[in-house]
Amino acid sequence: MTRDEMMAAVKAEMPERRWTHTLGVMATSVVLAERFGGDPERAERAAILHDVAKYWPTARMETIIREQHLPEELLHYDKELWHAPVGAFVAQRDYGVDDPEILDAIRYHTSGREGMTRMDKIVCLADYMEPGREFPGVAHIRELAEHSLEQALIAGFDSTISYLLQQGKRIFPLTVAARNDLILRLREAEE
Amino acid sequence: MTRDEMMAAVKAEMPERRWTHTLGVMATSVVLAERFGGDPERAERAAILHDVAKYWPTARMETIIREQHLPEELLHYDKELWHAPVGAFVAQRDYGVDDPEILDAIRYHTSGREGMTRMDKIVCLADYMEPGREFPGVAHIRELAEHSLEQALIAGFDSTISYLLQQGKRIFPLTVAARNDLILRLREAEE
Repeated sequence: MTRDEMMAAVKAEMPERRWTHTLGVMATSVVLAERFGGDPERAERAAILHDVAKYWPTARMETIIREQHLPEELLHYDKELWHAPVGAFVAQRDYGVDDPEILDAIRYHTSGREGMTRMDKIVCLADYMEPGREFPGVAHIRELAEHSLEQALIAGFDSTISYLLQQGKRIFPLTVAARNDLILRLREAEE
Repeated sequence: MTRDEMMAAVKAEMPERRWTHTLGVMATSVVLAERFGGDPERAERAAILHDVAKYWPTARMETIIREQHLPEELLHYDKELWHAPVGAFVAQRDYGVDDPEILDAIRYHTSGREGMTRMDKIVCLADYMEPGREFPGVAHIRELAEHSLEQALIAGFDSTISYLLQQGKRIFPLTVAARNDLILRLREAEE
């Protein structure tokens, strides 16, 4: 599937507003890949597809999670988390993506994970800071992203966790594990 | 060992300031146990001992964690967490405490855990809100504790997690699991 075919197909899966967001994540992923030594073309491919399942009905996502043996733990947490692993499955099944790094970047773009690859970090951070995003702390994330992929991503996870604290909502353990791992590796790199 | 003997022995393990804190946790544990249907006498016993290892040298705590096969994961996190499981071991070995609920309340008083017992909650919350504590949000925790052990404890964990976010420090996964579990059970109880 060509880049243009993929873009047209994904655009048809979501409202205009979300497609604008996707264009922002694509452009930001390319910038971050160039800045931090990633592969711009593959990062952009992951960005095109990252929200492909975002507007799918809950029941359709739940069926895929169960049938494809995706982590059922997800079903006990916020539905906002479901579209990422479901999106990775759809990217492979319906869009013919077989590149495991692209699939992982889609799979973990919302939660993060321990041992994030450079491409995981790029797409996850781009999702936080693309030009259309407005939330407390986003300016600080963009500043950090001038110099450090990891520090910016930690600040992104901080904003998610702060939001969940304020809302009295549960925190997905993988996000805490992702943030802890980034902090530990930064500290070890400084020593 | 009598209550007075235990108090004298624990007092000798810490600076005056920390003993004052322990007296605060004892008094608050008794109040909370009476308010929420706990056992005041056993909660107070746990409170007496909760910080027994707080001022032990790091190396001495580390030896116990390794030799007694306490969770070695602890060693990769902040040393502030170590004295709780070490304290539970010391309470049993040196103070003859065999009551598993008292030992668990000591063991989990800093981190919390999934499936906290009423006594776990009482001692952990008392540690957050005893009269000597002053930190952002403690007044709100005390207010919530007038009516709900669980809501107050969630607010306590919120304050810990917020502090770690601000400090750029890692968050101990068990604390997130404890908070998530309390939120889920409250929600299920409301349904």
